Amino acid sequence: MTNTSLQINKDLNIVPFVSVDHMMKIIGKLGMENMLEGIASYVEEDFKRWQLFDKTARVAAHSNEGVIELMPTSDGDHYAFKYVNGHPKNMKEGLQTVTAFGVLSKVYTGYPILFSEMTILTALRTAATSVVAAKYLARKNARCMALIGNGAQSEFQALGFKTILGIDKLRLYDIDPAATEKCKANLQGYGFEIVVCKSAKEAAMGADIITTVTADKLNATILTDDMVGPGVHINAVGGDCPGKTELEKSLVLRSSLFVEYPPQTNTY
Amino acid sequence: MTNTSLQINKDLNIVPFVSVDHMMKIIGKLGMENMLEGIASYVEEDFKRWQLFDKTARVAAHSNEGVIELMPTSDGDHYAFKYVNGHPKNMKEGLQTVTAFGVLSKVYTGYPILFSEMTILTALRTAATSVVAAKYLARKNARCMALIGNGAQSEFQALGFKTILGIDKLRLYDIDPAATEKCKANLQGYGFEIVVCKSAKEAAMGADIITTVTADKLNATILTDDMVGPGVHINAVGGDCPGKTELEKSLVLRSSLFVEYPPQTNTY
Repeated sequence: MTNTSLQINKDLNIVPFVSVDHMMKIIGKLGMENMLEGIASYVEEDFKRWQLFDKTARVAAHSNEGVIELMPTSDGDHYAFKYVNGHPKNMKEGLQTVTAFGVLSKVYTGYPILFSEMTILTALRTAATSVVAAKYLARKNARCMALIGNGAQSEFQALGFKTILGIDKLRLYDIDPAATEKCKANLQGYGFEIVVCKSAKEAAMGADIITTVTADKLNATILTDDMVGPGVHINAVGGDCPGKTELEKSLVLRSSLFVEYPPQTNTY
Repeated sequence: MTNTSLQINKDLNIVPFVSVDHMMKIIGKLGMENMLEGIASYVEEDFKRWQLFDKTARVAAHSNEGVIELMPTSDGDHYAFKYVNGHPKNMKEGLQTVTAFGVLSKVYTGYPILFSEMTILTALRTAATSVVAAKYLARKNARCMALIGNGAQSEFQALGFKTILGIDKLRLYDIDPAATEKCKANLQGYGFEIVVCKSAKEAAMGADIITTVTADKLNATILTDDMVGPGVHINAVGGDCPGKTELEKSLVLRSSLFVEYPPQTNTY
């Protein structure tokens, strides 16, 4: 029985794998700005055929320490899902807050055709999606962005907004000044004018775009109503699951809200 | 930026991978009967701590040709999910109806710790789960099982029921006589007394346990009310998504029903 029933075509078992090392090499070859620009372009195309996708709210397993999520979707030809975790406490233990991988499959056969790291891709895609949204929603000729929360993702955000929208003035704030210093240092050489701020309120002053990119499940309020003037575009990246709040309720209520997929977004 | 923000601990990237080849070697070394017995034992233990699991109904993406499903769960310490497809038409194209893989992670860090093929494991686990259910639900000293639907899974079912419950009389039926012949040939040498039947009704005659293991989304009725006497245990394996019916409604209504997880089971 073993030989006959368990016979499996070995050629079909070979699913190409893109490791973290491979992804680093791809980025090294193409350049970070080109990667961000290319991903933003695909994201924009996919939003234009948004109604074609079989969408499912992310399937989350919450624990005290963090969350593990599966994110499946399909456009009828291809099926894909991403596995992603979010564990803010990981940083202190020398681990990453977010790691991810994903699989692409053929809908027609159900067979996987690509297996890829998505830790790096998630960082890039998050920034690229923010940029695509801002391209349509932020005021034209925006130049100045507040970056509140200065972890690794804030650097990708900065670079994406610079490359695609020409944002070249940054106002940085993090509750941890060391994070701000690291962010500032890592962004040297990209042509930014950087102001280090002492509070979220100071960072928000005069910004055309305010990007909040914090991660803790603390029911925190990063941005209050009084900090945000009319016409400012808020790019609220961090509040992606229960307890991860960033915006004061009254601020949300007076804003025009745009989310990717309402069933997985709690917008009061 | 690339060097600092994308720094990833390479040791932590190494997730052990169990390929189909590895799994075949494990089975070759342990023996199929020992594998089935071991898996059944774990399945039984897990049912005993069923309330501990964070259960989610499978997340299915349906297409005309089949289905792709994600099946996540967690016991608080470990998180796991399985990716599995079901494409009945694949067989005709030299592909498998079902392929699967899975990932095991630490809840505390969100990091994957094992990546494994589950095409073979799904076949074994399905059979093992059927056996555990029958151990508690079928009449004691059952010896004779009808096997309706004689694809690869029916062989695992037969072997599991033989190894763990001592079922040694099989009554086989499939709409495709070649499938029955293949099943019979593959089960030679395991000590079964095998009767090849001309209909599902004939197969069901005198059976203590009736196992239906068919796959098409045809709203088929494999087993009608009149074929099943009192006290018979029906092991309905194939009807696991909309359109994959096996049992006549009146038969379901007069039976005591046992399912793993009601939210993902439509029991009329």
